[in-house]
Amino acid sequence: MNRSLILFFTGRLIRIVGLLMLLPLLVSAIYKENCFCDFLIVIILSLILGQALVQFFKPKDSIIYAREGFIIVALSWLICSALGALPFYISGEIATYTDAFFETVSGFTTTGASILTDIESMSKGLLFWRSFTHWIGGMGILVLIVALFPGVSDRSIHILKAEMPGPIMGKLLPRLKDTAKILYLIYLVLTVVEIILLLAGGMSLYDSVVHAFGTAGTGGFGIKSDSVAGYSPYIQWVITIFMLVFGVNFNLYFLLLRKRFGDALRSGEFLCYFGIITVSVGVITANIASMYPTIGESFRHGAFQVASIISTTGYATTDFDLWPSLSKAVLLILMFTGACAGSTAGGLKISRVMILFKSAKRELSKLLHPRSVGAVKFEGKALDNTTLANVRNYFSLYMFCLFGLFLLISFEPMSLETNFTAVISCFNNVGPGFGGVGPVMSYALYTPFTKWVLSFAMLLGRLEIFPLLLALAPATWRKSK
Amino acid sequence: MNRSLILFFTGRLIRIVGLLMLLPLLVSAIYKENCFCDFLIVIILSLILGQALVQFFKPKDSIIYAREGFIIVALSWLICSALGALPFYISGEIATYTDAFFETVSGFTTTGASILTDIESMSKGLLFWRSFTHWIGGMGILVLIVALFPGVSDRSIHILKAEMPGPIMGKLLPRLKDTAKILYLIYLVLTVVEIILLLAGGMSLYDSVVHAFGTAGTGGFGIKSDSVAGYSPYIQWVITIFMLVFGVNFNLYFLLLRKRFGDALRSGEFLCYFGIITVSVGVITANIASMYPTIGESFRHGAFQVASIISTTGYATTDFDLWPSLSKAVLLILMFTGACAGSTAGGLKISRVMILFKSAKRELSKLLHPRSVGAVKFEGKALDNTTLANVRNYFSLYMFCLFGLFLLISFEPMSLETNFTAVISCFNNVGPGFGGVGPVMSYALYTPFTKWVLSFAMLLGRLEIFPLLLALAPATWRKSK
Repeated sequence: MNRSLILFFTGRLIRIVGLLMLLPLLVSAIYKENCFCDFLIVIILSLILGQALVQFFKPKDSIIYAREGFIIVALSWLICSALGALPFYISGEIATYTDAFFETVSGFTTTGASILTDIESMSKGLLFWRSFTHWIGGMGILVLIVALFPGVSDRSIHILKAEMPGPIMGKLLPRLKDTAKILYLIYLVLTVVEIILLLAGGMSLYDSVVHAFGTAGTGGFGIKSDSVAGYSPYIQWVITIFMLVFGVNFNLYFLLLRKRFGDALRSGEFLCYFGIITVSVGVITANIASMYPTIGESFRHGAFQVASIISTTGYATTDFDLWPSLSKAVLLILMFTGACAGSTAGGLKISRVMILFKSAKRELSKLLHPRSVGAVKFEGKALDNTTLANVRNYFSLYMFCLFGLFLLISFEPMSLETNFTAVISCFNNVGPGFGGVGPVMSYALYTPFTKWVLSFAMLLGRLEIFPLLLALAPATWRKSK
Repeated sequence: MNRSLILFFTGRLIRIVGLLMLLPLLVSAIYKENCFCDFLIVIILSLILGQALVQFFKPKDSIIYAREGFIIVALSWLICSALGALPFYISGEIATYTDAFFETVSGFTTTGASILTDIESMSKGLLFWRSFTHWIGGMGILVLIVALFPGVSDRSIHILKAEMPGPIMGKLLPRLKDTAKILYLIYLVLTVVEIILLLAGGMSLYDSVVHAFGTAGTGGFGIKSDSVAGYSPYIQWVITIFMLVFGVNFNLYFLLLRKRFGDALRSGEFLCYFGIITVSVGVITANIASMYPTIGESFRHGAFQVASIISTTGYATTDFDLWPSLSKAVLLILMFTGACAGSTAGGLKISRVMILFKSAKRELSKLLHPRSVGAVKFEGKALDNTTLANVRNYFSLYMFCLFGLFLLISFEPMSLETNFTAVISCFNNVGPGFGGVGPVMSYALYTPFTKWVLSFAMLLGRLEIFPLLLALAPATWRKSK
């Protein structure tokens, strides 16, 4: 175990978090808010601590192996959340550290589950930071480090693998650093385009930026207690489309940049994503038609909620907890699938669902033709047995975690539906669930114990299970033989 | 495709169903009930039709290959249910054929989900038949044919495989027929022992037999609207213990017969089963302690309900839908796990859950030690990759079916909890769910469409998915090249 490497990286990270807080510091300065001082304190603290760690623990060997990679990823996300929660707590605007930590984890993991019951009373600087964590967490904070800092070897791919969701990690460019840079650039440009389009709809700059952060990271933190229900249909449509855009595999945008339009459009995962959205919106629009004055409005609400849930964003234009069972069932299933791999969305990812489905189908046909050896194909390539086994194992592990977490929060006297969808929603980084954690409710009523469990669930989901479980396993910390 | 073989087997089966109905015929004769005539009509019909098929379709080649095996199994269960439903329908005691079919499928698949709202008004002959279907379906009707009839080749193992639940089919004796016979003998003896113990508790002979059938098949059809809540604690304890006994892999009883006590007790699945029961009963007893006058009563209700759900029987001594969320969450998870492979219980089976868990655990440790090749061991043996892939694929397929069925019945205006647990309960052959399908409710309120979907779910679960899906796939019916 290369402890100094881990501490060195942690130091860098803490420094970065401090620097990132300069943005909300600026915002609170503009609005002349008290939280300016709180940010300043945390920034100074982070810079000193971070610099000290970087100074004292210069590693001799800077190659990140699997073991160190997982620990670095797990630790980084914990530290980011712990530090990021401080301004909320110091300012007193969130009363307990548990709540502040929950809110920050929910931000970085792009979940969007909130314990705030009176959002409008919060200061603008803090709400800005809250949404900014979505933007940072969406693409991944370590990806950022890899993109910006020198001295990160190409063999550090482990940390990128752990942070980028999906079953297969695509290396777009030969050099890791370039891949990370191009991904962040695409991310930035799309976010800016959304801000411009929101501004064009008459939204204020502050509101536009905050909502673009929430959409880009597929997070879902808003600044109103009714989420985005109060904005104009134009604004809601812009957000709908961008939620879907950020649910697409970023590799596709890279292909578009390279003018390989055919390759991009032929992506099986993209087509499946598109198909699921079309069918879901159709079913829900028909199902809720009688609840709204016009079919156009049903369509808008249907499309918005489908985009919000499949991209695991979690914004809402209406209280979908009141919808009929069929619509709720569709949304529940979309919480599981999530959007495409290599996007900022959570959930199982459509590529995994497709691979599981194809591999189950092959198994069925094998029963009829035992000697056939048809391979499972994905995106035009035959998958090897290791990848297949990985995806299937991931799915079992995912289910074990889901049920384990569900048991842990069942101590709460909430209804089964509330507890079950709270876990599904947090674990898949969606945000709202049904019943007591529906889109117009919050997680405030849960006990501190459950809030810690759900914070863990969000991290587990965002990092796709492995890093966090491994960081907790004693075997990881044992000296290697 | 060997069509005459399929028709020949179907004929035999229809004949057997006719013969099996002699027992309820006798019961209705004893109680001088009108349903006597109804049974007589169906018996005569079955014998003529069955004999005709057997006579006209003597197959030249009597080896059952995989393809024919699956079709025979799927077809047999459909025909049994269709025929078995006739007495209920003809007698007029169940008003529609949909309901009669649902009830019979629920019987044969040992689910125990009922559409009856006034059980006490049914005639004794029909209630006897209803419970008898549990007993027949528990061990499997084709296993019975294999055990009794001459001319079934040892290569017919496919149909046994399809009917015997679990990931690995144990051949106890070299000859298939002997395996089937010894399994049925163990089944019969255990049932008789339970009848005697129930009689000793002051239960009438009729009640004892009916409840022993329901327990042995892990079905759960009772003859009172309050299930077994009205019987004495002694009776409830006897049923508790026998539900658990019938949830154990029958291979273990075979080992006991052979005096290989050590091997039997060393079974990992059995120990895990025992462990899960102990923990669940402990947690639930503590959780519901405040709801009942004494801790002894909480323990009795806890133990009964855990035994009932893990063995997928579905009897109830109390309305567990009123229990706190934690207890309901435990029961919900037990619905998924089910009991041991090779028992009469439904669900995923503990052996599968164990294999999934171990294989996920190995995957985690592989991430730390990429070059290690530790095998997944089960019951002392290393599992090959094919078995592992089968179990993992089964799990994905299981989940796909679950969500697909859930979507199909979401057209119902019931709550999400009701619909979701209705599917889980039927698919895992449990019986009751929560909410609108809780232990004191029935499935009567569902529309005919949903009843057909749930009937399909029960069959799919009982036959462990493959046979029914394959029988529906066009590729199965295509002429082989």
